[in-house]
Amino acid sequence: MGQTPREVVFQLPLQRGTTPLAQQLAAHIRNLVSDGKLQRGDRLPASRLIAKELGVARGTVSDAVETLIAEGVLEGKQGAGTFVVIEPRVLSPARLHLAAHREVPLNPAPEPDIDAQTEVLIDLRPCRPSVAEFPVQAWRRCMSLAASAPLSSDYGDSQGSYRLRTAICDYLRRARGLRSEPEDLIITNGSVHAMHLLTLAFLNTRSTVYFEDPGYPLARQTFASSGATIAPCSVDRDGLLLESLGSRHRGSALVYVTPSHQFPLGSRLSITRRQQLVAWSDKHNALIAEDDYDGEYRYDVPPLAPIYSLAPERVVYFGTFSKTLFPDLRIGFAVAPRPILDVMRRYRTIFEYNGNSQIQHALATFIENGSFERHILKMRRVYSKKRAAVQERISKEIRTAHVTGINSGLSFTLELDESVDAHQVHRQLTTRGVLLPTISRYCANQKHKVNGLVFGFAEPSIDQLDQGLDQLIAVLNP
Amino acid sequence: MGQTPREVVFQLPLQRGTTPLAQQLAAHIRNLVSDGKLQRGDRLPASRLIAKELGVARGTVSDAVETLIAEGVLEGKQGAGTFVVIEPRVLSPARLHLAAHREVPLNPAPEPDIDAQTEVLIDLRPCRPSVAEFPVQAWRRCMSLAASAPLSSDYGDSQGSYRLRTAICDYLRRARGLRSEPEDLIITNGSVHAMHLLTLAFLNTRSTVYFEDPGYPLARQTFASSGATIAPCSVDRDGLLLESLGSRHRGSALVYVTPSHQFPLGSRLSITRRQQLVAWSDKHNALIAEDDYDGEYRYDVPPLAPIYSLAPERVVYFGTFSKTLFPDLRIGFAVAPRPILDVMRRYRTIFEYNGNSQIQHALATFIENGSFERHILKMRRVYSKKRAAVQERISKEIRTAHVTGINSGLSFTLELDESVDAHQVHRQLTTRGVLLPTISRYCANQKHKVNGLVFGFAEPSIDQLDQGLDQLIAVLNP
Repeated sequence: MGQTPREVVFQLPLQRGTTPLAQQLAAHIRNLVSDGKLQRGDRLPASRLIAKELGVARGTVSDAVETLIAEGVLEGKQGAGTFVVIEPRVLSPARLHLAAHREVPLNPAPEPDIDAQTEVLIDLRPCRPSVAEFPVQAWRRCMSLAASAPLSSDYGDSQGSYRLRTAICDYLRRARGLRSEPEDLIITNGSVHAMHLLTLAFLNTRSTVYFEDPGYPLARQTFASSGATIAPCSVDRDGLLLESLGSRHRGSALVYVTPSHQFPLGSRLSITRRQQLVAWSDKHNALIAEDDYDGEYRYDVPPLAPIYSLAPERVVYFGTFSKTLFPDLRIGFAVAPRPILDVMRRYRTIFEYNGNSQIQHALATFIENGSFERHILKMRRVYSKKRAAVQERISKEIRTAHVTGINSGLSFTLELDESVDAHQVHRQLTTRGVLLPTISRYCANQKHKVNGLVFGFAEPSIDQLDQGLDQLIAVLNP
Repeated sequence: MGQTPREVVFQLPLQRGTTPLAQQLAAHIRNLVSDGKLQRGDRLPASRLIAKELGVARGTVSDAVETLIAEGVLEGKQGAGTFVVIEPRVLSPARLHLAAHREVPLNPAPEPDIDAQTEVLIDLRPCRPSVAEFPVQAWRRCMSLAASAPLSSDYGDSQGSYRLRTAICDYLRRARGLRSEPEDLIITNGSVHAMHLLTLAFLNTRSTVYFEDPGYPLARQTFASSGATIAPCSVDRDGLLLESLGSRHRGSALVYVTPSHQFPLGSRLSITRRQQLVAWSDKHNALIAEDDYDGEYRYDVPPLAPIYSLAPERVVYFGTFSKTLFPDLRIGFAVAPRPILDVMRRYRTIFEYNGNSQIQHALATFIENGSFERHILKMRRVYSKKRAAVQERISKEIRTAHVTGINSGLSFTLELDESVDAHQVHRQLTTRGVLLPTISRYCANQKHKVNGLVFGFAEPSIDQLDQGLDQLIAVLNP
C-alpha cells in the first residue's frame, strides 16, 4: 500500500458559500479515485494535515472521509490510517459490450394535443391566468407552515388530504351551491388526472363518450385512451346541443360538458338544457362529466348551480386550481358518486399512491384563512377591467369580428365574418409575434369548424392586450 | 322591494383571528338568502350602518358586499342601495326527480395490494423510513424559497423541472457512478408512477414481465394492468435466479429487479448475475427495470454500480425520495433510454401534464445545498445503530430465527426454522400489537413461499425495536 502523493489531495480549489466544503472535498477525492490518480491501497494523508493544508476545520475533513467510507470508497484501518479500497471501474464501470444495437419495440407514442411552447411577443392563448397579482407572501406563509408540520413515515391517503377535501367542500358550498362531503372528493394532480382516473374506472373499448366539439383536447385524448368511441357533439351559443347526443351507445356512456363556460366557445349551458341533459343521462343510464375549469370568473350574469347539484348520482364534477392559483400548482379534484370514486381511488393507489401532502396542506391553509377567496375577488376585478378594455376596442375598431362567450372565464370567442378567414388571420398574426389560436384548432370533427379565434385576455397586461389588438386591427383592417 | 329587517343582518357572531371578517359577513348574508330569511328584492341596510352596528371597518362591509355582487347574490342599484337578486334555490337548488336509481356499470375495481392502515403498538413493516431526524428547518427554507420564486402562467415541463433533473443527475454520478444527462430523466410522483409510464410506453397484452418472487406488489400490479403476463421468478441469497427467466415471451419482455436490496428478501444481485442478466436481456431483446428503492443505505459491503451503468440502452433505472426524505413527498424518477423516455413523457402530458413545480424546486435546492447528502450520511449512522442493536439481540436471544439480507436498506429477512410457522408467529404478534409481515405476503406464486418474516428496523425508535423484540422473543421462545 502506498502513501498518497500529498499534492494530489491538496490541489482542491474550494469554493465557499456554495456546496458544503465537506461535500466538495469528498467529490474531489472521489474524482481522484475514478480518474485513477488515487489507487486501490493508497493511504490518505492524516485528516489534520488535510485540514491544515486546505484551511478547513478538521470536522469538515472527517465528514468527507466518513461519507467516502460509507460509500465504500475508503476504509479506515485501526491505527494504520485511511485507505482507498475501490477500483476506478466500480465508481465508473465500463459498459458491457452488447450485440449490435436492436431497439426494443414500443407501444404507439401518443401525440399530445397541446400547443408547443413558442417564443412570442404577445400570447393570447386561452387557459392562461394572470399570475402577476398572486399573493406570493400569503402563499409562502402557507407553504412554510406546511413544511414545518410533523412528518409521517407512511405514504398518505390516496384520496388526498382530508383537510384539503373539507376546505374544498366548504368553498364549493359557499361559492357554487354544491353540497358534498369530504368523502365525495378525490384530490388529483390537475383535473385531467381526475378524468384519467374516471377513464380507468368507467370507460372501455365498448364505451361511448359524447364530447363537445370544439372541445378540450387533453380531456378528449384522455377519454379516448380507453379505446372508447368519441362521438363529437355540436355546440351553439347556449352550450351543448342536446339533439346531437343521440343514443348511439351500446356500452357505458359518458357526456363531457363545460357548462359554466364552454371550452373554447365560451357559451353557458342554459338551465333548460341542463335539466334536459340530466333527464337524458337518466334515461340512457349515462354519466355526465362536468368540467368546471374556470367557472370562478363570471362577470355580468347571474350564477347557475352546477349540474352536479341537480343530480349528484349522475354527475362527476371536475375542478382545478390551475386558473385560480397558478397552472403548475397541479392540483385539481373530482366530486363523484361514491361507488365511482372508490374505483378511481383504487386505481390511483396502484399507479401513483398519492400526490404531495405538503402542497395539499398549504392549499388547505390558503383556503381556510380566506386568502383564496380574497384572491378570486381581486382577480374578478382585474379580469373585468381587461375584458372591458378589449371588448370596447374590438367593438369600436373592428367590423369584421364580434365577441361572444365573454360572460365568464378567461377567454372569449372572436367570431369572424365570412369575408375573413380565421386560419389566414392566425398565420398573419403569428408572423407578427401574436399567438391567437383558431377555433378549429380545438375541433375533432372538421364539419363543426367555426370561423373564428379564441382570445385569452387574462394573462397579458392591458398594455400587451393593446399591442395584440393593434396587430389584430392591422391584420383585419388592412 | 322590501327593506331588510336590520336585526337579521346584525345578528352575526363575528370571530376575530380566524376567517377574515369580510368573508364571515359574506357567508352570513349568503346563508340568510339560502335559508329564505332574506328574500329576492330585499334591500340591505346601508354599509355604514352595518359597519357601525357590527363594529367593523366600512371597507370590510364593502368587501363582503362586493363578493356577493360578484357571486350574483346581491346587486347594487345606483342611488337606490343594494338588493338581493337571487332565489334560495339558486344557492341550493333542488335535485331533479330521477327515475328509479340505476347504477352505472363500472370497470372491475382493482384491489390494491397494500397493507391496511392499522393502529398498532409497534410497526415493523418494511419501506418505512424514520422521519424524526429529518432536517425540517432546512427543508422549510427550501420550500419557502420555492414558494417565493416567480410564477408562470404555463403548465410546466412534463418531464419535470430541468433544475431538479440536473441535481439528481449530479447526485447519481457522485453517489452511484451512474452517468446520465438531465435529458435522460423524468421526474414522477413516486417511482411506481414512473413504472406506470413505462407500462404505458412498453407493455401490452402480448408482453411478458419477469418479476422477482417474492417481490414488490404495487410494481407487479402496475405492470399487470397492461394485460401483460407476469412470470414470477425465483430469488435466492444472490438475488434473482437467472435460470428462472427462461425465454417464454413472444411479445415485448421486461425483467423487474431490485438489485441493491431485493425486496423483500434483502439480497444483493451479484456482479456475475448482473452481467448475465444484461447479456440475457440483449440476447432476448428485453428491457430491464432496475428498481433502486433504498440503495442509499448500504452498511458493510462495497458499492456495486447500478445495472444501468453496464448497459444504459437496456435498462430503465427507477429511484425515489420516499425512503431518503419522507414517503408522502411523492417524488421519484426514472432514467431511461431516450426513445422510451419520450413515449413515457407523452403519456404523462396527456394524463396529468406535470407534477407540482414548487416541490420540485424545493427538492432541487435541498440537493444542491448539500442538505440531502448530509441527511443520508446522518441516517446511515442512525440506521446502522438500530440495525446493530436488533441483529445483536436476535443472534443472542433467538435460536429458531436468523437474520439475512441486512447489508443494505431499511429492512431485513428473519428466516425461521422449520419448527416454527411464520404465519402463526405473524398472527400471535399481531394480537400483541406488533406488525411484522410474513415473506409469503409478498409472493405471487405460492410455490416460492419462504418461511420467514420481513423486519423493517428503520422507523421505530431503539426503545420501540426493543419492545417489538421482547414480543417476538416471547412468541418464539415460549
